[in-house]
Amino acid sequence: MTDPTTMSCPVPAVETERVLLGHGSGGRLMAELLGDVIAAELGGDVTSEDAATVDTGTAEVVISTDSFVVTPRVFPGGDIGALAVHGTINDVAMRGARPVALSLAYIVEEGLPLDELRAVTASAARAADAAGVRIVTGDTKVVQRGAADGLYVTTTGLGVRPPDAQPSAAGGRPGDAVLLSGPIALHGTAILSARESLGFEAEIASDSRPLHALVAAMIEAAGREVHTLRDPTRGGLASTLNELAEASSVGVEIDEDSVPVPPPVAAACELLGLDPLHVANEGCLVAFVAPTSAGAVLDAMRARAEGAQARRIGEVTAGHPGRVLMRTLLGATRVVDMLVGEQLPRIC
Amino acid sequence: MTDPTTMSCPVPAVETERVLLGHGSGGRLMAELLGDVIAAELGGDVTSEDAATVDTGTAEVVISTDSFVVTPRVFPGGDIGALAVHGTINDVAMRGARPVALSLAYIVEEGLPLDELRAVTASAARAADAAGVRIVTGDTKVVQRGAADGLYVTTTGLGVRPPDAQPSAAGGRPGDAVLLSGPIALHGTAILSARESLGFEAEIASDSRPLHALVAAMIEAAGREVHTLRDPTRGGLASTLNELAEASSVGVEIDEDSVPVPPPVAAACELLGLDPLHVANEGCLVAFVAPTSAGAVLDAMRARAEGAQARRIGEVTAGHPGRVLMRTLLGATRVVDMLVGEQLPRIC
Repeated sequence: MTDPTTMSCPVPAVETERVLLGHGSGGRLMAELLGDVIAAELGGDVTSEDAATVDTGTAEVVISTDSFVVTPRVFPGGDIGALAVHGTINDVAMRGARPVALSLAYIVEEGLPLDELRAVTASAARAADAAGVRIVTGDTKVVQRGAADGLYVTTTGLGVRPPDAQPSAAGGRPGDAVLLSGPIALHGTAILSARESLGFEAEIASDSRPLHALVAAMIEAAGREVHTLRDPTRGGLASTLNELAEASSVGVEIDEDSVPVPPPVAAACELLGLDPLHVANEGCLVAFVAPTSAGAVLDAMRARAEGAQARRIGEVTAGHPGRVLMRTLLGATRVVDMLVGEQLPRIC
Repeated sequence: MTDPTTMSCPVPAVETERVLLGHGSGGRLMAELLGDVIAAELGGDVTSEDAATVDTGTAEVVISTDSFVVTPRVFPGGDIGALAVHGTINDVAMRGARPVALSLAYIVEEGLPLDELRAVTASAARAADAAGVRIVTGDTKVVQRGAADGLYVTTTGLGVRPPDAQPSAAGGRPGDAVLLSGPIALHGTAILSARESLGFEAEIASDSRPLHALVAAMIEAAGREVHTLRDPTRGGLASTLNELAEASSVGVEIDEDSVPVPPPVAAACELLGLDPLHVANEGCLVAFVAPTSAGAVLDAMRARAEGAQARRIGEVTAGHPGRVLMRTLLGATRVVDMLVGEQLPRIC
């Protein structure tokens, strides 16, 4: 009989490391890809924030870029054009900046109906107009059939930051209040429902919307006391809180019963086996705010439609830096981890 | 017998207008797509220039975006990473601005070897570093196998423009000298040769390189007398001159014998049935310069490696506005038209 401890497979061929769908999830695999591959090759200049500041000598300019590959391209509550505008406006706003201009780059598959390109462009224009931001330049590339899935949109946003706004992923401090501007998991469940025709479409719509006016109101209320702002998109609230905890070298503790999950969203997540904390959002933000200003910031948020349901969901702690804990409804405490692989590909 | 004048096909079904590969060519079809579809939906703010200026109140900032879908991704003289950096640096420079920062957005197909993503990123980083421009932010999206062709890269560039630089597509005036910084048609023939394994690879390399230092030298020599700058990428020198003639409402006349086409490029174009005037470039520029400053600008260009072969190729005229004429080697004059459909898809 063969001794099982000496059994061996044939020497494996050297496995080429390849990109996995999970590398695009916004979770842990993605963090590894960005750290080990992209940032490692680019060197030290690339920001871990959603947007970078560029000192042009006389003004502090914020720039952010995002590609949108969402499928389907039209979904309850939005479409790829409006989403591309809102997403980039929000990334610029999360650095405390006032978005002033956007660029719009298309990669189009040969055969796309021109009417669809028209509709997407009109939707992007309406979204920019409603947000008071100008689309100033763009690019269009066409690839042959089969080389893209219809249409991909890359938007880049430019903003100007007032001196009293300095929110940063690394700005959280122990004692800060953790604020959330609205209900979570709407965007991800709306996309999944539309994609798979699950029948939730009547009840659940994406929360896709611009948040820069909400941010401006928060900054006006508390200036630099607004330490950290982030919109929890890919990877959901859980991944975002983990990223912020790590960047700020602090712990985060949240209360399960304070995190608003609309009942239809909770039902859909239950059915699909999804944790709402890991589902993408496109219209809410999480903030770390100095405790003395938390009340004033909450009031300013609630005075606006997109912040009407704003609430405090927890606090920043000195203990367990880099980790996020949640006090559950049953009184236990559990670790809230980053999303690891891919839960919902092509969610934005 | 049927009267042929009354013959008719069955009533055709309403044909859906669709995107064609030729819509990405940089030629006339593309101009129609941009005008009739994109700009029509976006309204008045979108520039016809390669980059837009954004007045942030205290500084004039220039922004430009470009998606790169070139195939193959590695070619003689460059790769998609360096090309994406050079292309956007050049678009910013063509507005007279000093590029200061770039963003880098990837759309990656599941299954791409990580080593290739590493190599492309390293190449982009080297190109940016060599040009003195920082890559400050980025984004990575992953799509499933078959939904993209390996890797698409979108770069957006930010630049700052000094007050003495005002080049614009609409700035050309009758009497201006038409200057060309170097030989044409290298990039397109290099890509095509690599793609089809035509065997020219040893002799022809892409001219992909940054031109912002050349532009700075030209502006330093003549300031606002540099009326118009453009790098003739997709659609080649012919399409670019047509665009500028139209934007400036002037005519352009060039001399065939003054347009430098390297002999191996001319041979390749002859074999492939391509007009070098329609083949893409990634490392030369065309300028309209006030006649009194043309000599000084040419001297400044020739003092740099990337402008060593700079020359005057013609002049701007008041006659035939919007048209480009070429005096041929045989003494005749022919109209140089825009590229109409697609000559070389996915050239950049």
